[in-house]
Amino acid sequence: MRSLEVKNRWPLLVLLLPAMSLAFAYRSRTSVDDIKGLRLITAIKTPYLPDGRFDLEAYDSLIHMQIVNGAEGVVVGGTTGEGHLMSWDEHIMLIGHTVNCFGARIKVIGNTGSNSTREAIHATEQGFAIGMHGALHINPYYGKTSVQGMVSHFETVLSMGPTIIYNVPSRTGQDIPPVVVNRVSWNPNMAGVKECVGNDRVREYVEGGVTIWSGNDDQCHDARWDCGAVGVISVTSNLVPGLMHELMFEGKNPALNSKVMPLIEWLFGEPNPIGLNTALAQLGVIRPIFRLPYVPLPVEKRVEFTRIVEAIGREHFVGDRDVKVLEDDEFVLIGRY
Amino acid sequence: MRSLEVKNRWPLLVLLLPAMSLAFAYRSRTSVDDIKGLRLITAIKTPYLPDGRFDLEAYDSLIHMQIVNGAEGVVVGGTTGEGHLMSWDEHIMLIGHTVNCFGARIKVIGNTGSNSTREAIHATEQGFAIGMHGALHINPYYGKTSVQGMVSHFETVLSMGPTIIYNVPSRTGQDIPPVVVNRVSWNPNMAGVKECVGNDRVREYVEGGVTIWSGNDDQCHDARWDCGAVGVISVTSNLVPGLMHELMFEGKNPALNSKVMPLIEWLFGEPNPIGLNTALAQLGVIRPIFRLPYVPLPVEKRVEFTRIVEAIGREHFVGDRDVKVLEDDEFVLIGRY
Amino acid sequence: MRSLEVKNRWPLLVLLLPAMSLAFAYRSRTSVDDIKGLRLITAIKTPYLPDGRFDLEAYDSLIHMQIVNGAEGVVVGGTTGEGHLMSWDEHIMLIGHTVNCFGARIKVIGNTGSNSTREAIHATEQGFAIGMHGALHINPYYGKTSVQGMVSHFETVLSMGPTIIYNVPSRTGQDIPPVVVNRVSWNPNMAGVKECVGNDRVREYVEGGVTIWSGNDDQCHDARWDCGAVGVISVTSNLVPGLMHELMFEGKNPALNSKVMPLIEWLFGEPNPIGLNTALAQLGVIRPIFRLPYVPLPVEKRVEFTRIVEAIGREHFVGDRDVKVLEDDEFVLIGRY
Amino acid sequence: MRSLEVKNRWPLLVLLLPAMSLAFAYRSRTSVDDIKGLRLITAIKTPYLPDGRFDLEAYDSLIHMQIVNGAEGVVVGGTTGEGHLMSWDEHIMLIGHTVNCFGARIKVIGNTGSNSTREAIHATEQGFAIGMHGALHINPYYGKTSVQGMVSHFETVLSMGPTIIYNVPSRTGQDIPPVVVNRVSWNPNMAGVKECVGNDRVREYVEGGVTIWSGNDDQCHDARWDCGAVGVISVTSNLVPGLMHELMFEGKNPALNSKVMPLIEWLFGEPNPIGLNTALAQLGVIRPIFRLPYVPLPVEKRVEFTRIVEAIGREHFVGDRDVKVLEDDEFVLIGRY
Repeated sequence: MRSLEVKNRWPLLVLLLPAMSLAFAYRSRTSVDDIKGLRLITAIKTPYLPDGRFDLEAYDSLIHMQIVNGAEGVVVGGTTGEGHLMSWDEHIMLIGHTVNCFGARIKVIGNTGSNSTREAIHATEQGFAIGMHGALHINPYYGKTSVQGMVSHFETVLSMGPTIIYNVPSRTGQDIPPVVVNRVSWNPNMAGVKECVGNDRVREYVEGGVTIWSGNDDQCHDARWDCGAVGVISVTSNLVPGLMHELMFEGKNPALNSKVMPLIEWLFGEPNPIGLNTALAQLGVIRPIFRLPYVPLPVEKRVEFTRIVEAIGREHFVGDRDVKVLEDDEFVLIGRY
Repeated sequence: MRSLEVKNRWPLLVLLLPAMSLAFAYRSRTSVDDIKGLRLITAIKTPYLPDGRFDLEAYDSLIHMQIVNGAEGVVVGGTTGEGHLMSWDEHIMLIGHTVNCFGARIKVIGNTGSNSTREAIHATEQGFAIGMHGALHINPYYGKTSVQGMVSHFETVLSMGPTIIYNVPSRTGQDIPPVVVNRVSWNPNMAGVKECVGNDRVREYVEGGVTIWSGNDDQCHDARWDCGAVGVISVTSNLVPGLMHELMFEGKNPALNSKVMPLIEWLFGEPNPIGLNTALAQLGVIRPIFRLPYVPLPVEKRVEFTRIVEAIGREHFVGDRDVKVLEDDEFVLIGRY
Repeated sequence: MRSLEVKNRWPLLVLLLPAMSLAFAYRSRTSVDDIKGLRLITAIKTPYLPDGRFDLEAYDSLIHMQIVNGAEGVVVGGTTGEGHLMSWDEHIMLIGHTVNCFGARIKVIGNTGSNSTREAIHATEQGFAIGMHGALHINPYYGKTSVQGMVSHFETVLSMGPTIIYNVPSRTGQDIPPVVVNRVSWNPNMAGVKECVGNDRVREYVEGGVTIWSGNDDQCHDARWDCGAVGVISVTSNLVPGLMHELMFEGKNPALNSKVMPLIEWLFGEPNPIGLNTALAQLGVIRPIFRLPYVPLPVEKRVEFTRIVEAIGREHFVGDRDVKVLEDDEFVLIGRY
Repeated sequence: MRSLEVKNRWPLLVLLLPAMSLAFAYRSRTSVDDIKGLRLITAIKTPYLPDGRFDLEAYDSLIHMQIVNGAEGVVVGGTTGEGHLMSWDEHIMLIGHTVNCFGARIKVIGNTGSNSTREAIHATEQGFAIGMHGALHINPYYGKTSVQGMVSHFETVLSMGPTIIYNVPSRTGQDIPPVVVNRVSWNPNMAGVKECVGNDRVREYVEGGVTIWSGNDDQCHDARWDCGAVGVISVTSNLVPGLMHELMFEGKNPALNSKVMPLIEWLFGEPNPIGLNTALAQLGVIRPIFRLPYVPLPVEKRVEFTRIVEAIGREHFVGDRDVKVLEDDEFVLIGRY
């Protein structure tokens, strides 16, 4: 929106300085095409210690299980990973940790988006400086803005590195209309869109040449095989990475899709990641510790999960302990951390 | 959800320590009834300097105009005041500044809510420690949670002081159902609800004995006079505080309501506070500086505003300069600050 | 250092914007003369809860005892108050809390100094915005700088409000030479110097017309009555405010000075506030909780303190419980908080 | 100080939780011996952009020049690198950036020390989590503490990874006595001491089996060849890395030592890094931008530097532009950033 630029004393140019120097970029730069080809990206869970800090031991184990089961990328600190419950320094540290320990084996996509443009700029700059391969950017949720505001928001960060735009109106209160995506798609860093609005929208984008990841596990099979989505950014793959890999890589498979559907429905009965947190704790791969405002599913749902695991087969789930029904008093809920 | 409390090694009690010592409370404590009686509360605009910091001179002037025109309270750093674009230390400072300069003349309600329970606890504790009279608490937007999660979230902060719960599903992506409000209403600090869902919901709450402020300027007249709302938490009163005061205090007045309706419609044509920011700049009471992701309304809308001012009467609006149409290049948009 | 200002693209003026708008200033502004006349200022202790947060109940009680015993001002978050162990948001909150609860009865001087000019600017701006009456500013300890650097450092903050400069080379590693004080003394906000170098320096400044507070309790009697210091910024007055008041207000009194000297010597046997923290805990006015790197004095010293209290008279000390020797395991040391 | 541990309700153990989980450690862990063998470690300069942010392009170039000239390690954000003028998130980001871009070619030692134990714990935990090879830890400067307090302070961080303790009483106001070093030397993570007190102290430590780096460039030749120091943590090597490498690796060389001495004396005429910042700007390898409270050396000194460069030989200095005398108005001093 050129016309908004200030021509006199306070040029926009000064206030929005070139976001990042380029020297380190050529060393660590992931190409946009490397991101565009990823079929299975897991929105990874962040596990906690009893005092609320990150449980990096459990985290590293979760990532390791993703790698060996075929996930090609992780979103660090997404809504699933509860980035909105992290301080920014925790968040950036977790991105840096993931890059340092696993960056050679899996693509690390930092959820450095924010409803505050300032925070998005700062976090994205830091994330790329410490080696993340791509950024996930949400539109300004809660505060919301105009179409022009969305475009301006995304433009401040697109210069920094490969970027996936994330549209989830059921969380943000505001759809990113295709006009916004089209207006920023000229940018060479624009990798594509994680789209949750549905497969009609997926098809529309794909036909226009935009790379799409489904953001809905229950629709991702069809998105991939019927609508042209490149793959999925998945929650369910935290639990059954091998099955989700099969679903994305091995061709159309409605039988398998139907098999995992009860799990997906169970997972999203309450806002994500409530179900996921409960499930991973019951699988024994994380401690049963919740940062508020998340609380575990009630005991009936916890029992139901064990039946779902049995039906699908324990061997398809992460971890190697027996799945068990945790008691109420085994969970720890933390407000200060 | 008592059963979730931990009985063994990590008691919830330890992790959720008594939120606040009581010594200062009796000195500065505002009673919940003082809050419950407020009819006109303005969700005050936060103005900026060219480098993006707060323009406290303009801010003080805005508050002063609210006081002399009859507003009884202000929400500091609400969505209108762009609390989501502040760092927490800026936010708490602004609350403390308002208390220090104006606390004897107007009730200061700090928007210390957050989608992160940790942040809500920390900010609310700090806000009451520095003298704010009440807190505004949103449910966990964007991240969302279960009904039980909402209850737990609100319960961590209700012990700290008089509290208004804020329901605006069009921003948060999730309605606060009445069952949540009812489950926390036993708390003596519960002052009431700022409700944006509509006047049927308002009536339902009022009949159940819950104090309600309308969160929709276009419905507040009817909410107040037909549905039993105590008043409004208003955006429009930033511009025409006297008229909004009349609307809330002087009895049913559909003519006046109709008179301001074109202004209200103009204001909310794009997500608030885009219209408000544009309007206040054109009235000459703030500098035309926007923190991204907000951008000014386009010039047609800016022209339209001057006509609305003429129609209602310049004398009803804040400030004493002529309203003018600002040019594109008079606006400054800031991403780093 | 005018010659360093940039004349071309990046003017210093832009980067060091006018620090603060003036609107609120005239409302809350304390005159420099109000600060210059204070004879007894206590560098107040910050007490803690078992989880390391501030114990505001105990704090309010400590301040109350200062007021009733004649202290005219407090330094909030000084080295005694362990400002260097606070996050800035905690620090500013404590200043705001003190202003809000006690600002009408005692002058609140915020230790908003830092070895980082950026932090000093930000904190001082915030402190004055929320109503503190004066700022205490240290030279850049640890990092150190040149004479010109010190002058530039102090000049960035002096515009904001009444200021006391603090010289304590035994902590900072660097003396503030009189040339620095003289170069900033033209500033109308310059209230004076808290000087720890000794009474010869005090006399030199006083003869030059600079207002001085002794920063050494063991020298303050002579500083006040022989060298022309206006008073003291005291640690010992946390314990015996009435006696320190007598020492500063009631005329030369070498007998009283000798009487409190064993207490002062005991207090400063280890770096302050180790002795003070131990003493207040034994007097029962704070919980025996230490933020690391501070640890309690050993038991021999704790026993010695009770004898000193007896010798001077329990009634001169704050609190009304019997002084007792705390056991090792009654102390809590906290590293994470 | 076992006896201080709490045996009842608030165990120290709970409050000082195991600092770090071990999972990632075995993957990325540098052995203490890898640190102990480093002879030339450069306390690297942090260069800035005109708005005060890090100039990562210039930084990467500085690190590159260190690597090709034989430096084996860098201290990131030391006093030379102005860590005390960084926010912690900037600081950790710079460590992560260095690890990510250069960690395979040079050892990255993060200065994650602080006078606040809380900050030291948090930063060190983050630094090791993102892959730094070692930590540099200062005693609590400015705030100071007792011998027992120093021991407790260092013990909270030593569990996290290879650690160098830094003693520089001229900055901290307090010597770390050998008793402290001896009491923590049992810890397998204890790599050694950067000692600035002088070569008698160096010799004493070396005889006791403690690994020592000289922290004084003017004494490092003798420390290395006469007193048994393993090497130096150097400021001067920012300018002449090859010569410092020769001094540490190629045997006793008093002639070379004398040759660089005028440069060293010039560098430390004012508190470091004032001289270094001025010199690097004149060599054209960084922009002439200073974060306050640092200011450039006066013009006479800037002229003197060019003569020193000539005398030693431009080819020994970093960069390939002609050294030049910068004018006053070419420097930018920044207070807000």
